[in-house]
Formats: sequence, C-alpha cells, structure tokens
Amino acid sequence: MSTSVAVGEDVAAALSVSTTFLSPLPDEGGNAVDYRNPERHVYSRYTTQNSTRVEHILSQVTDGLALTYSSGLAASYAALVFFKPKRIAITAGYHGCHAMIEVYRKAAPDVKVIKLDDDFESGDLCWVETPLNPTGESRDIQYYADKVGGKLIVDSTFGPPPLQYPFKHGADCVLHSATKYFGGHSDLLAGVLVVRTKEEWDILHNDRTYMGNTMGSLESWLLLRSLRTFHLRLPRQSETATALVQWLQKIALTPAGQSFEGIAGGVLTKVFHSSLQGTDARGFDPRTQMTGGWNATFSIQPATSLGGVESLVEYRASWDPTSDPRAVRISVGIEDLEDLKADIRQALGLVQVKSKL
Amino acid sequence: MSTSVAVGEDVAAALSVSTTFLSPLPDEGGNAVDYRNPERHVYSRYTTQNSTRVEHILSQVTDGLALTYSSGLAASYAALVFFKPKRIAITAGYHGCHAMIEVYRKAAPDVKVIKLDDDFESGDLCWVETPLNPTGESRDIQYYADKVGGKLIVDSTFGPPPLQYPFKHGADCVLHSATKYFGGHSDLLAGVLVVRTKEEWDILHNDRTYMGNTMGSLESWLLLRSLRTFHLRLPRQSETATALVQWLQKIALTPAGQSFEGIAGGVLTKVFHSSLQGTDARGFDPRTQMTGGWNATFSIQPATSLGGVESLVEYRASWDPTSDPRAVRISVGIEDLEDLKADIRQALGLVQVKSKL
Amino acid sequence: MSTSVAVGEDVAAALSVSTTFLSPLPDEGGNAVDYRNPERHVYSRYTTQNSTRVEHILSQVTDGLALTYSSGLAASYAALVFFKPKRIAITAGYHGCHAMIEVYRKAAPDVKVIKLDDDFESGDLCWVETPLNPTGESRDIQYYADKVGGKLIVDSTFGPPPLQYPFKHGADCVLHSATKYFGGHSDLLAGVLVVRTKEEWDILHNDRTYMGNTMGSLESWLLLRSLRTFHLRLPRQSETATALVQWLQKIALTPAGQSFEGIAGGVLTKVFHSSLQGTDARGFDPRTQMTGGWNATFSIQPATSLGGVESLVEYRASWDPTSDPRAVRISVGIEDLEDLKADIRQALGLVQVKSKL
Amino acid sequence: MSTSVAVGEDVAAALSVSTTFLSPLPDEGGNAVDYRNPERHVYSRYTTQNSTRVEHILSQVTDGLALTYSSGLAASYAALVFFKPKRIAITAGYHGCHAMIEVYRKAAPDVKVIKLDDDFESGDLCWVETPLNPTGESRDIQYYADKVGGKLIVDSTFGPPPLQYPFKHGADCVLHSATKYFGGHSDLLAGVLVVRTKEEWDILHNDRTYMGNTMGSLESWLLLRSLRTFHLRLPRQSETATALVQWLQKIALTPAGQSFEGIAGGVLTKVFHSSLQGTDARGFDPRTQMTGGWNATFSIQPATSLGGVESLVEYRASWDPTSDPRAVRISVGIEDLEDLKADIRQALGLVQVKSKL
Repeated sequence: MSTSVAVGEDVAAALSVSTTFLSPLPDEGGNAVDYRNPERHVYSRYTTQNSTRVEHILSQVTDGLALTYSSGLAASYAALVFFKPKRIAITAGYHGCHAMIEVYRKAAPDVKVIKLDDDFESGDLCWVETPLNPTGESRDIQYYADKVGGKLIVDSTFGPPPLQYPFKHGADCVLHSATKYFGGHSDLLAGVLVVRTKEEWDILHNDRTYMGNTMGSLESWLLLRSLRTFHLRLPRQSETATALVQWLQKIALTPAGQSFEGIAGGVLTKVFHSSLQGTDARGFDPRTQMTGGWNATFSIQPATSLGGVESLVEYRASWDPTSDPRAVRISVGIEDLEDLKADIRQALGLVQVKSKL
Repeated sequence: MSTSVAVGEDVAAALSVSTTFLSPLPDEGGNAVDYRNPERHVYSRYTTQNSTRVEHILSQVTDGLALTYSSGLAASYAALVFFKPKRIAITAGYHGCHAMIEVYRKAAPDVKVIKLDDDFESGDLCWVETPLNPTGESRDIQYYADKVGGKLIVDSTFGPPPLQYPFKHGADCVLHSATKYFGGHSDLLAGVLVVRTKEEWDILHNDRTYMGNTMGSLESWLLLRSLRTFHLRLPRQSETATALVQWLQKIALTPAGQSFEGIAGGVLTKVFHSSLQGTDARGFDPRTQMTGGWNATFSIQPATSLGGVESLVEYRASWDPTSDPRAVRISVGIEDLEDLKADIRQALGLVQVKSKL
Repeated sequence: MSTSVAVGEDVAAALSVSTTFLSPLPDEGGNAVDYRNPERHVYSRYTTQNSTRVEHILSQVTDGLALTYSSGLAASYAALVFFKPKRIAITAGYHGCHAMIEVYRKAAPDVKVIKLDDDFESGDLCWVETPLNPTGESRDIQYYADKVGGKLIVDSTFGPPPLQYPFKHGADCVLHSATKYFGGHSDLLAGVLVVRTKEEWDILHNDRTYMGNTMGSLESWLLLRSLRTFHLRLPRQSETATALVQWLQKIALTPAGQSFEGIAGGVLTKVFHSSLQGTDARGFDPRTQMTGGWNATFSIQPATSLGGVESLVEYRASWDPTSDPRAVRISVGIEDLEDLKADIRQALGLVQVKSKL
Repeated sequence: MSTSVAVGEDVAAALSVSTTFLSPLPDEGGNAVDYRNPERHVYSRYTTQNSTRVEHILSQVTDGLALTYSSGLAASYAALVFFKPKRIAITAGYHGCHAMIEVYRKAAPDVKVIKLDDDFESGDLCWVETPLNPTGESRDIQYYADKVGGKLIVDSTFGPPPLQYPFKHGADCVLHSATKYFGGHSDLLAGVLVVRTKEEWDILHNDRTYMGNTMGSLESWLLLRSLRTFHLRLPRQSETATALVQWLQKIALTPAGQSFEGIAGGVLTKVFHSSLQGTDARGFDPRTQMTGGWNATFSIQPATSLGGVESLVEYRASWDPTSDPRAVRISVGIEDLEDLKADIRQALGLVQVKSKL
C-alpha cells in the first residue's frame, strides 16, 4: 500500500506523449542527465515518463538492467550493433531473427553465421533461444555459456520471469519480445534487452537514441498497464499449458485402435514441450533451468493437417515452406483449460474424420 | 465530399492496436501480400491500417513512395542500411544525424565520412539537409545531384511539401522527421523515407520489418489526424516566419545609436533564413528551389546571449559546445505574428539592458 | 513563445487517465478545493488535468466560464437541471434537443413546452438555437433576450467564436456541441455550457459531479489538441462555406432553360444561409450578430432528391419524416472550395438527369 | 480458441473514436437499427463498436442486459429517470449516491427520500447497496425484494460477479460502478445498469441517447481490455481480502496487554466485512448471497487515527464530517498478501506508539 506519488498526483500513470520538454537555459548548466534515472526528460527519443517507469519495473523482474525498443526484432538488431560479433552462432528458432541477421549483414557483410553445434572462437556471439519457437523445448543455457568464446545472448521470450532467469546460467544479455508475455493483450509491439551493468546500459541507450528505434508512447503506457496483471497472467498461462500438454501427451500415447476420453488413438503423433523433454544426452534437465514453471507455448504434430482451430494457433508452414505442414504451435492464453480442451477435442475429431477418408 | 468508406464505417479512423490479425489456413494460400497495398494485415510489424493510410497520404503529398519509421533518426539509419555507402558526404546540419552515422559505423567501421565540398567518388552517399538545421538556410540540391557519383539523399525536414520537392532537383531519396511539421503538435515521434520506385520501397519495407523500427500505434493515428490540418498549418507557419524574418532583418540593419519601432539598433547582429540568402557565387537562388514558400525555422544572432525567450527557442550551444553561445534557433508555430513580435521585442529589450551593463 | 510549463515538463499535455489522486491525510485539512482552479485533483469525476485546461481555454474564447460534458446533449440536459424551468420555449432546430426535453420531462412531467412566438411568462426558459440546424439561418438573440421573462440559453453550436458572442446580445447561458467545431475531427463527443459567473459555474459543477456526465479522458485530450488548430480551421470553414453559398445562390437564381457554369437552371430551388437572409420584418440583420464571419453549415433544396453526395451531407428526412425529403444540410469542412464545387456540380448533374426522366 | 473475427481482422479490438458513420441514403431505408445488436453504427452517442462489445460481455457475466454510462453516478441517475419513483428508500452507503439523489430532486422536488427500515408503499424505489460502502458488510437483497411495493435496485459495485447475482434474489435492476472492479486499473470512469428485459434496455438506451451521458471512447476500450483479466483479478482480490480480514480479526480479538504476531492487542477495535457478519436477527446469512467469494473491500476501526497507510485507504471522514474519524476503508488490490500485511503491521505499530504518547 505504500506509494511513490505525491499528494494530488495520479494514481494511474498518464499517457505521456510530449516529444519535447522545457529545457533549462544554457547557463543553468542542466545537461548531464542520467538517462536511466532522469530527474527531467529532454526529448522523448531519449526517455519518457512511461518508458523509464516500464524499464525500472522490467529491471526488477528480470534481475538486470532493462531497455525497451520498438519491437522484439528492434531489440535483437540493437544487440548485434552492441556486440559487433565476428560470427553469430544460431540454429533454428524464430524465423524473424534469421531475417534480421540478414538485414544486419547488409551493413556488415563480413559477419558469418554458424550453427550452435559448430566450434566456437573468440568474437563469436552465441544466440540461444529457449524455450524455442515453435516447439517450446528448452536449450541448456549453461552449456553454451561455458562453450562460448565470446558473448551469450538468450532470447527468453518464451520463458519470461519467473519461469527462468538466464543470468543465473551465464547469459551476458537477455532478450524479450515484450509483444508476447509482458504485453500479453495482442495490442502492443515492444522489445526488451536486459544487461548486467550500467556501463552496458548506457551504451545501449546511446545507440538507441541515435538509431531512433524507441517504443511508441501508447505501447509504453499499455506495457505499464499490462505489467500490473503480469503476475496473475503468466502463472495461469503456464499452469494451463502444462495441464494441456499432459492431457495431449496421453492422447499421443494412445495407440491406434484404442481411445482416450473418446478421442481415437493415432490422431496425434507427437507433443513438444519442455515438460516432456526429460534429461538429454549431455545431462541437461530443463527442470533445473525452468524453476518457476513451464512455458505456455508448445507444439503438436497431428497425423494429418489440423483444420479448424484458429485463433492462437500458428502453422509454421505458413511462414517457412520447409516445415512439416502438419506441425502446429499453440500459445496458451488465460482461457479456461476445459474450453481449450473442448476446442482441441473438436479439431482432433476432424483429423480423425479426415484420416478415415 | 466523396468518401471511400462503406455504409456504417467510421468516418474518423479508429486507433488500431492489434499486433496480430486472423490468418487464413495454409491451404487458403493467402501468403502473397503486397505490403504497400495490403488487402489484409498479417502482423503489425509489417503493416497496420493507420500506418498504411498515412503512407499513402504522405506518398501523395511528397510525389513519391513513402515509408514510416519510429523516428526521424530511425528513418535516417534505415537509409544507410539501404544505400550501403562506402563514404558519406555530409557537412554540419542536425547533430543527431552525425551521431547516428557513428552508431552505423559500429557495424560498418570501414565507411568513411567526408565533407560535401570534398571530391566525390562512385559509392558515395551525398547527404544534403536543406533548409539546414539550425540556420534555416538552403543548399542547392541540383548542384549535389549533378556532382554525386553515388546517391543523393535530401533531409527535407525543414522544407516539407509544398515548400520544395527534392525529387524535381535530382534527389534519389527524401527524408523527413515527421516529428516536426507533418506531426506538428509536439506529441509524436516519427520518421519518413520517400523513394521513387516500388522496388526500392519493397526493399526498405523488408528491412524495416526485420529491423523492427516501426512507428508506434498512437503515433500512426496522431500523424493521420495531424495530416488533416497540415494544409492549414504549414502555410501559416511559413507566412508568419517570413514576416517575422523581414521584421527582424530591419532590426538587424538598424545601426547602433538608432532605433526601429523602439528597438535599439545593434542588439541583433544577424538573421539567417532562406529568404535572406540571395543568389550565391555558384548562381543558386533559393527562390528556384523553395517554390512553395519559405521555411518556418530560422536563426538569429543577438549581440549578447538572449535570456528570457523560452518555449520554441533552442540554444544550439546546449547541444554543441563548439557553437556560438549567442546563436538562437527559432521554430515558428501557428501563433499570431504580433504575439511572436511582442515576445521577441521583450527579449531583445533585455539584451539591450544587458549590453548596457 | 511564453510558456507556463516548468523545466522538464511536457510541452504537449499528457493524456491523463487516473481516476484517483493521492489524497492528503484528514489532519492535513486538504478538502477545500476550488474545482475551477484546482491546486490538486481529487477524483476524475470532479476534475482532471486536461478537462480543466480545456475549460480554461474555452472560457477564454467564449468570454465566459465554460464547463464540459460527455456530449452536447449532456450539456443541454444539465442546462435544464440548472434552470429548472416551468416552461421551455423552443421552435424547430436540432431534433435531438427536443428528444432530450422529453427525457427530462420524465422526471419533471409538469414542465410545458411552448413555441418561441408564444407569449412568455416568468419562469420560462427561452431556448434559441442560432444559426439553426439544419437551415443555417440566424435568429435574433437580442429580441429573445428582451422578450423573455425568465432565462435565455443560446445553442451556439453552429456559430462558435469568433463568429458570434451570444453574451453580448443578452444570453444567460451559451451551449455548444463541442463534437462539431471545437472538436472538428469527427473523433470526439463533448458538450460545453458557458455561464457568466463563478456562482453559476459552481452549481453546474456540483450538478455534473453527481449526475456523473463528464467528458471522457481521450475526448478531453483530443479536444485540447483540436483547440490548437481551431483558429485556423474555423475561419477557413466559414470562408469556404460563404463562397460556396454565393456560388450555389447563382445556380438557384438561374431560370430553367438557362445555365450557369454549365449547370442547368432549375435544378436548385433554394439555398438557406445566414448570409442570404437579409434584414427581417422586425429589423434584424444577421450581419450585426455574426460579426466574425458566416456559419459553415447551410442547406439547399434541390428540385428533386439529391442522390450521390455523401459524406458531409445529411438528409433531414432520415431523422424527421415530416421534413421535405429533398432538403439537404451541408457541413463545410476544411477541404478545398473547388473540390466541393466539383462534387456538388456532379450531384446536381444527376438531379438534372433524374428530373428529365 | 474459437474466434469471431474474419481473416485479416484485428485480434485485439481497435480504439474506435469516430462520432459519425457513413449513412445509407434515405431511399435505402436503413433507419431501423437494433441498438443492442447493431448491424451498423449511426452516431457514437447511440452505439460504438467497443461499447456494444463491452455491453455484450457485461451482459454475459451479469446474467442480464447491460448498458454502459459515463460513470457509476451517471448510471445511478439514469436509473432514477427510468424508474420515476415517488419515494426512494435508502440508508447510508456511498455518499455520492445521496448527493446524486439531491441533484435529481432539483427536477423532481416532490420525490421523497425515506429509510430502508421505513414502511414501503407502491411507487417506492428501494435502493440497496450491498456489500455496503465503506464497511463492506452485506444487506439481505431477498428481504428487500419481498418488502418493496415498487422496484428494487441493487448497487452491486462491491459484489461483482461471480461474488453475487442480485437477480437471483429478486432485484429488478443491478448497478455497478465499473470504475471499481470491472475497470480495475484506476484509469477509467464508467457505470453499468443491468436489467432483465430487452424492453427495459431499449428505454434505458433511448434515455441515454438523449441525456447524452455515454461512456468515453478510451474508457470503452480500456474496459474491454480490463475484462480480459477480470476472471483473474477479482478472485485474487477476494481471496487476499478474506485472508487479510481473518488476520486482522485475530489482531482485533487480542486483548490489550497481549500481542499477536508481535502486534499489541488493543490497537484495533473492530473489523467490518461480510465474512465476519454471521447470521443476523432476521436469519440472513451473507454466505447464502455471496456464493462466489467475499468482497475485496472492508473497513477497520483502529483505536486511534491511523496515519501512514496511504494509497488504497480512504478515511471516510475526509468525505463525511459526521463519520468516526478513526474509521478506515481498505480496498484490496491484486498485491501480494504478505506485502499488505507488512504495510498494515507498520501502520498499526505507529498507532500503538501514538496511543502510548
């Protein structure tokens, strides 16, 4: 119930839009602004009331120093400008990130792209997305932190706090598309980079000021509003997804000719999710990394293409023609578990019908 | 009075915020979207209702194909990524642009920066800002178009349409900070690049999609709203500035010991503005370039530092310690001319008093 | 160029949304708030930063004390609650106002409605709309001010400042639908009452606080933004409408069988506008009332129903089945005069064709 | 995962602001709009995309037909206009409601105000607020439904669904200040009336259209956004409040001279909350009415004035000088229970110190 506002001040933040703020006269010598904790704002491309406030909250929840961007890819691009890698080690994951790297290479054509399993050298930037889009499976952050000769950035979009804390496992920088879980209402684009030190933050802030890829004013305000329910939304999404995955796994394990809760075995080939990974050959158990709950996005592979489930489902093949056309990514929201089951039950029923035809 | 809306549709555009739009299923084959004229929207980092609408209007008024960005500097940075210059020729002008080039050089350290009066080579990008910030004087676009071996970009922020049309004088690309005159209410950050061909626009759009430096949703909507009064605002600002410059020039030409309208001669050393430039040694007359009116921003140099005029005035020295501390940039808004005169009269009176002390 | 903001403060107002503001503790005795000039805000149903700011600007431009409401009709209803009339004298004008009176009479069924030409008594509220919706013709405010035994309210929606100042002609209260000219972008609903004294304002404010019909937060902010261009928009609309009326009047005066600028005489029966009224039988010349320019809304009566002109045109008969189905109201915006002429020329051409069939 | 949007449509609703919508021509005969399920919108004072959508969702969750207003008091005032009572039976509760009735009585001075325990007659409107502001104690809806000769309205602001369903206990109309729990972010003013039949809804809609007390456009959109997390927020607030009340009750029951968890007995005189009421003399047990959880607002009465707890606490005496200056209302949000306990522990510690001085 404590508050930092003064008598007469707004309890809910105003949507600040001003690009300019009244400057002191030159002889008032007011130039040395600490942009992370500004006593006054100068120009909205530098800082605004709401973006500063959002960055402080995000810093608290991510255990680092956060900076916001106009989108997740803008944050990704800014990370490349910051790290100036000689090579980027990346395998699969979000397709937009690969396209972003190609745009970066227009300015820096000598930068090479290698795979995560290739040998690393000094000057490499290791780019680990975990849990991975679209499968929702986890990668071992500590393994890559130990392996990398250069720096390790973790795209933690699918594993926001409190699910996992990449800095604990050796990350140098953490990336989030705030469009996804921090925003959580499908109504804002924003990106976040989190670093460990004020020196790094200051460089990123300077770069952002002059690359001009700042978050919009409504996006800042909505993100602030979204963060007020983040501690309710994310646990619910994690719990519902985990229960749904367990239920789907039972369907997947049902042999053809048998049925589970009235659903014919064989309609579902495989379910992908961190919770189903188990310990891998190198000894990595996702349980030790995702200590705050499992991710809310996962994938399934029906026996035939799944037609009829719409809103939160993405066909990877829509984006990437090399993908298995049956693979489907499911992002679980704050809906009721039983409603989701009913929708999937209906869709799988259609699969069953199709596969009989 | 014609309209493109259907019965029951909004007369004023809604503020669209959705990041995602319902996708067709893969077998509906709905992937080939023309992002300049999208029949449907896919993801707001690609296109949105309002940004597309704004870009169409800006294309009409700039006689080219316009694309929007999160800020003027974001547009500037995107231009460098697009042109991939070996060298950038630039002299003075907006300080932020020079800082932006330095950030670009982090990825591309081999890129050299030369002066506009240096000899040009193939692969050069000639960066001409006109009218120039902060003086408000014009540069000869055609001269640089003829001289350049590579490409010519014109930062036309201080000369928006109908004041000048840089494509008519040989520009390859036109840049605007829409934060200034297109926005016009100090409440939005946005940038614009205008190119000549759909091929160029498509490349810029692809780059923007993956650099993620898109304009915010409220910024899009406010820019659309601003453009509805642009044809009233800009002519008024141009006319008022021009009248003010003529009045100030009379003050500047008044010798010490005499007075003009009660203002002592000698308080004002010089007035800078396109309208006062006349024809230069190379034969360039700004009148032939600024065919739609003079710019609304100009500079004055008082005999001593001007203290007391605040809101629309910028001391260059606040930003650039190498500047003359007396130089003052004045951005004229849609205020009444006589109100502006009264404010300046008062400020110059203070100058007079100071210089007597 | 003077400003009331402090160093570091926003140059453009933020969109304040907070409903509650931090209260002082009881023993700080902070209860006596002057709601017209609040040092602090208490609850947004009382005052907000932007609505207070808007009300101060509207007070300046209307030469009174202004209060805002959720719509023009909300302001109208509040006027009835304030004046508690025994009878309301009103003839024709905006249909919504008549419907509003009927809703008011649900609580106060004894209140009678009479015509403006009926004899007046003490306790009457005389309701004069001028210029009148939809014809755009003026009524003589001073005449009704002299005649009324009770109070005179003027709905000045179609004659905002500087077109006319009803207080100069004896009005007790002035009403505006700010949705129309003050807002001016078809994107906000708001109403305004203007009174002469702080005592009246305080009563209206108390009523509004407990009737709860306050303007929305975005509406407040957009109205503030709209007022920054009001001095450019309204004169342009007035000038364009007046020129258009003169042009249409020439068409109306062209006999059948002749033509004007290629338009057949006889297609237009009549044009209604203050500028065409002349001096009436009682000696009222609208010129003496509309000293700041003619209104931007007027009506025409084509020979047959006008089909094909859409966006700014309203068929009175859509609302009021007793109206002449041919009558058309035209609200002139800030478009180009020649574009409007072209649209009307085309529509009248269709009339001509229809009337030949 | 089902959705009602078409391919290419927004997944998150746009913020619609348009006041006007393109009308069909008169001969298209498009006038008969069902304003509860409009196929098209006509004017935003009638309906808008978002307010219609919000009203449908609120209708679903309240088991009735909901209509929105510019504030809770605007909804309250509209209820009086609708019911046209001869007498209003009301005792204590929200002070603003009593002030609203006084404003209503300016138009209808013959309307009398009686107490809930007075005898009822035909034509009475029984106004029951439950749980009651500020104590958070419940009143027996069914008792008043049986007693009333006229109509029963229940102000259910402190008991939104699923906490209680007043229609099940005989209410004729249910009122909510959506500013409180439906909105839930302190950033919007809105009110809701819920009735049982379409006939009643149509009358209320007609009244609202002409009283003009519609909800603002941002308020509509934010309320829609708020409702997406309502099913997470309200249960959390209810659970936290109930746990807090139980903890406070233990403190209140601790005799002076003893202590509970380090807090001295005697600092807290009394705790008020539905969960502590038990069965009353007439046999009413709040448990049978609040079947979905206890309310999130309650009151405490410390031994001396409580100084130091700020943000969510309201001193009744700030508003009502007749109140006990020690009484404090506590609205529990979605904060962590232990944080709230820590704040209260500290405040009560100060009480203890004060009472020793």
